[in-house]
Amino acid sequence: MLGKFITFEGGEGCGKSTQIRLLQAALERYGKRVLLTREPGGTPLNERLRPLIKEELEDPPVDKCELLLFLAARAQLVEKVIRPRLEAGEWVICDRFGDSTLAYQGYGRGMDLATVGELNRFACGTLKPDLTLLLDLPLEVANARRRARETGTGTVADRIELAGGGFHERIRNGFLELQRREPERIRLIDASGAPEEVFARVWKSISPIV
Amino acid sequence: MLGKFITFEGGEGCGKSTQIRLLQAALERYGKRVLLTREPGGTPLNERLRPLIKEELEDPPVDKCELLLFLAARAQLVEKVIRPRLEAGEWVICDRFGDSTLAYQGYGRGMDLATVGELNRFACGTLKPDLTLLLDLPLEVANARRRARETGTGTVADRIELAGGGFHERIRNGFLELQRREPERIRLIDASGAPEEVFARVWKSISPIV
Repeated sequence: MLGKFITFEGGEGCGKSTQIRLLQAALERYGKRVLLTREPGGTPLNERLRPLIKEELEDPPVDKCELLLFLAARAQLVEKVIRPRLEAGEWVICDRFGDSTLAYQGYGRGMDLATVGELNRFACGTLKPDLTLLLDLPLEVANARRRARETGTGTVADRIELAGGGFHERIRNGFLELQRREPERIRLIDASGAPEEVFARVWKSISPIV
Repeated sequence: MLGKFITFEGGEGCGKSTQIRLLQAALERYGKRVLLTREPGGTPLNERLRPLIKEELEDPPVDKCELLLFLAARAQLVEKVIRPRLEAGEWVICDRFGDSTLAYQGYGRGMDLATVGELNRFACGTLKPDLTLLLDLPLEVANARRRARETGTGTVADRIELAGGGFHERIRNGFLELQRREPERIRLIDASGAPEEVFARVWKSISPIV
């Protein structure tokens, strides 16, 4: 692969979107071609799948169905978008990827981690992120940010954001556990403070591979 | 499980729908409660997934995505519909199930059969059909029937029905291979002749378990 594949991970309200835009701008100043994409999404089929996964429906997906829908969208995104762009030498920045599946469906929903990992490897083939930025924030801070965003933009939380019963705490702890297992690939970023401060931490991890 | 789970399999144009209706009527005459369902489908979520799998889209699913979408719909159908109905003592007749995944995505698309089988077992959990009726027909006869149906109903073939390059021949041979491996569960039914003649063959397999 000629390009680099960077993923951003973290709970709701951790500031991924802002950091992704700042990273795109910084990389473009270095003359890189950068593609931003997101999960589930990034292709016309996946954008049609997205509401079936995220919205409050009369018939919400059971855990296995939810997992398989995320993986279906990932398989499509990898083959149709991420691999071709990397092979063309571009950088690809993805808002969530395989680690979210382990954190949300594994640690969060309580599905067997080894099985989830194996299914995820099936969907991705041999593709792995070159670097993953895990934006970490205490839950209270993340919740306050998410509520402020909803008030500011008039949006409402989706089905997954709204899940209760310790779901989001298990996810945060799951992400931290994943980071401890793969500290070289997954960089832990303190996501508290102003966006520019956080971005300085992000850039410290990215700049050695630019 | 108190009820019985019956699946119908076979290539396009083999007459599944007709036989399913005839079987439902026969079982109801024996006082059974019978639910008919289909794949992909059978729940509101799955009926919204169905066009994404079947229609000709600008962004058709890659093989892995197609497989995972079928399995996502299956996981939902098993947990929300099939298991609860069987536990309530009903008979469930499903138009296609796991053997179609092996025949179409495994033999047809050429994906690794062991992997497809393992993924299918993940989606289904421990559920297996009590009996599977494989309706078999030479390709020329099946194609002529399908064309006559399209002309008669003004419908057009979908993305999967239209696949060429020996796809449907590989599927037929795949189904026959699956039947040879599990002759107790999968009954080979000669689907040629009038619907009533074919149904006599179907009923011969079903009547011992009614």
